[in-house]
Amino acid sequence: MNAPSYGQRTARLLQLLRTSTETDCDAAWIIKPENRRYLSGFTAEDTQLTESSGALLISDNDRWLVTDSRYTLAAESEAPSFSVYTVKKNFVEDIPDFTHHLSFSHLGFEEDYLTWDLHRKTAEKLAELSPPVTLTPLKGMVDHMREIKEVWEIEALEKAADMISKILDEVIGDLKPGVTEKNVAWQIECLAREAGAEGLSFPSIVASGPNSALPHAVPSNRKIQPREPIILDVGVRLNGYCSDITRTVFLGEPDDAFKNIYRTVLHAQRSALGQINPSVQSTLVDAIARNIIADAGFGAYFGHGLGHGVGLATHEGPRLGPGKAIQLQIGNVFTVEPGIYLPGKGGVRLEEMVVLEAEGPRILTKNGQFYDF
Amino acid sequence: MNAPSYGQRTARLLQLLRTSTETDCDAAWIIKPENRRYLSGFTAEDTQLTESSGALLISDNDRWLVTDSRYTLAAESEAPSFSVYTVKKNFVEDIPDFTHHLSFSHLGFEEDYLTWDLHRKTAEKLAELSPPVTLTPLKGMVDHMREIKEVWEIEALEKAADMISKILDEVIGDLKPGVTEKNVAWQIECLAREAGAEGLSFPSIVASGPNSALPHAVPSNRKIQPREPIILDVGVRLNGYCSDITRTVFLGEPDDAFKNIYRTVLHAQRSALGQINPSVQSTLVDAIARNIIADAGFGAYFGHGLGHGVGLATHEGPRLGPGKAIQLQIGNVFTVEPGIYLPGKGGVRLEEMVVLEAEGPRILTKNGQFYDF
Repeated sequence: MNAPSYGQRTARLLQLLRTSTETDCDAAWIIKPENRRYLSGFTAEDTQLTESSGALLISDNDRWLVTDSRYTLAAESEAPSFSVYTVKKNFVEDIPDFTHHLSFSHLGFEEDYLTWDLHRKTAEKLAELSPPVTLTPLKGMVDHMREIKEVWEIEALEKAADMISKILDEVIGDLKPGVTEKNVAWQIECLAREAGAEGLSFPSIVASGPNSALPHAVPSNRKIQPREPIILDVGVRLNGYCSDITRTVFLGEPDDAFKNIYRTVLHAQRSALGQINPSVQSTLVDAIARNIIADAGFGAYFGHGLGHGVGLATHEGPRLGPGKAIQLQIGNVFTVEPGIYLPGKGGVRLEEMVVLEAEGPRILTKNGQFYDF
Repeated sequence: MNAPSYGQRTARLLQLLRTSTETDCDAAWIIKPENRRYLSGFTAEDTQLTESSGALLISDNDRWLVTDSRYTLAAESEAPSFSVYTVKKNFVEDIPDFTHHLSFSHLGFEEDYLTWDLHRKTAEKLAELSPPVTLTPLKGMVDHMREIKEVWEIEALEKAADMISKILDEVIGDLKPGVTEKNVAWQIECLAREAGAEGLSFPSIVASGPNSALPHAVPSNRKIQPREPIILDVGVRLNGYCSDITRTVFLGEPDDAFKNIYRTVLHAQRSALGQINPSVQSTLVDAIARNIIADAGFGAYFGHGLGHGVGLATHEGPRLGPGKAIQLQIGNVFTVEPGIYLPGKGGVRLEEMVVLEAEGPRILTKNGQFYDF
């Protein structure tokens, strides 16, 4: 696996800044951890929203990574294509000190990550500079760049998908009536660490019986029982990249109602996968699955979108849902995960992670735990 | 342990809204997960910043918990003092639908959590209402409420502190040269789960040798060695409440330089603890520790604040640092954690979590792993 070229990525960002018709900036201020890592290689997370581990400032003449003393050494070692500036107080207070290095007037910011308060404080400080600098939303520019994966990123995502697929095989093989949802979730976490993952890409969902009707159930002390649906929605993070897979399993044969629901969800998923290609709109793919579920009489019980992009974040673009139409593109990596949820009774969800190639979608999650009801 | 009275908390918030001279709102829009839980009992986390699990709307006549279908059942069961509204599309798009229930004109928002983009979209929708509603920053009102802990919260924090103190005893007892930092971090996580914690309150720091010079080191594959400093900065989350403790240990006797550093940090910490009382300013407490470290010749090597509040979040108010002076108050729970970090060589940090009572600080972290160098 080759390393990414951070120089190429920042060059591409600068080209987008110059040519964008959506936003008018000559520099970018990057604080979202995934975008920061994508452009620089700096891996630190933010411990809390108000506790940034660093900011990139990128313009034609600038490649600055502004951080604090906790992270200086890590920043210098991980992001050699950037000059590391260590703040004396904090990002906002230090603006007058480090901006005399800079050469831009319209600074783009990440409008879906920057808080209202930090925007206000930063805008005030930048306005006091001579000449003043103004803040302008980047309109998701870096997030959009990340939606088209490079070859080595697809390899990284496939490794993460492989790992969770194998873990899920082992976990499903071990499932027995009487173990709690929490037990199963903990087994998944232990196997992920033993396999060398950095951790889970999100808190595992292990939802049995009526709990499986909650799409975002938190593992409980409920003991799993025979013949009821058990949803396992899990993923690992490996070298920064996330994976995401869902299987619904039964210990012993379910009743006809759940067999029908399972068949419907599987049919909806396979039909949607069959229609994905590099010229299709996201809304059409969503509609294929949604119509099959509605035609089977479960239209009211599929309340979420069909899928989401996966990369350095578990949930990113492109989003596949009934709302905004997006043109799918070669290099997109996303999930296809229809579900049917009957309140009080239970639910079924099936999720694959795919990469869109010229020939169509290639499934990255290789786990054969399906029923032929 | 009694349960909290969510009714009393919302009543107090409304009283603060009416009497505040800092902000002028007649309602509060709460989306920060800790604040949401504090006021309602709804425990769901946000999976990502752009993926809220719900919002509270609180005014004299309103107690709404606005969520989506993934969380409706959990919201109804956990937050019975609120009326649950399930959005059809999302919070912003649904504003015209649920606001005809409402009766306020100045809606307060959490300026350090709300993103610039969501503020803009929400403000636009609220302005279209008749009569229009405007958005006003809450200026940390709920965060400030959380800084003074109720008796049962102090009990919850003490239980979380007890648990991590015991875990740390076991982990330090097991430490041997040759185990990796990652091994130790994983042992801590396993012990936390076995003890019944919801999880860690933050990713454990296990930093040995030169890594201990990085205040926010990530556990690596480095094998720990005799006579070098090993910083363990760890915490668990129990019933929503966090704990946070740091010990620095040596396997075998360190050299005189590190003995001196250790002595200095311990003296700085004990001196600061000795001066804490309900009438002292945070900056004075910080200065006591900072001056001792500076007088010993290490002033340039203590780059962070002395401590921070702990509660539903690991890092919250009050902050003890050299910057803004805060009057400490009875019921504050916070850390006292001076450190000295020599780049390339190593560091020492010692951290206790204390509650401020009328008689002074009471240490909640009961772990005796100290050296008498």
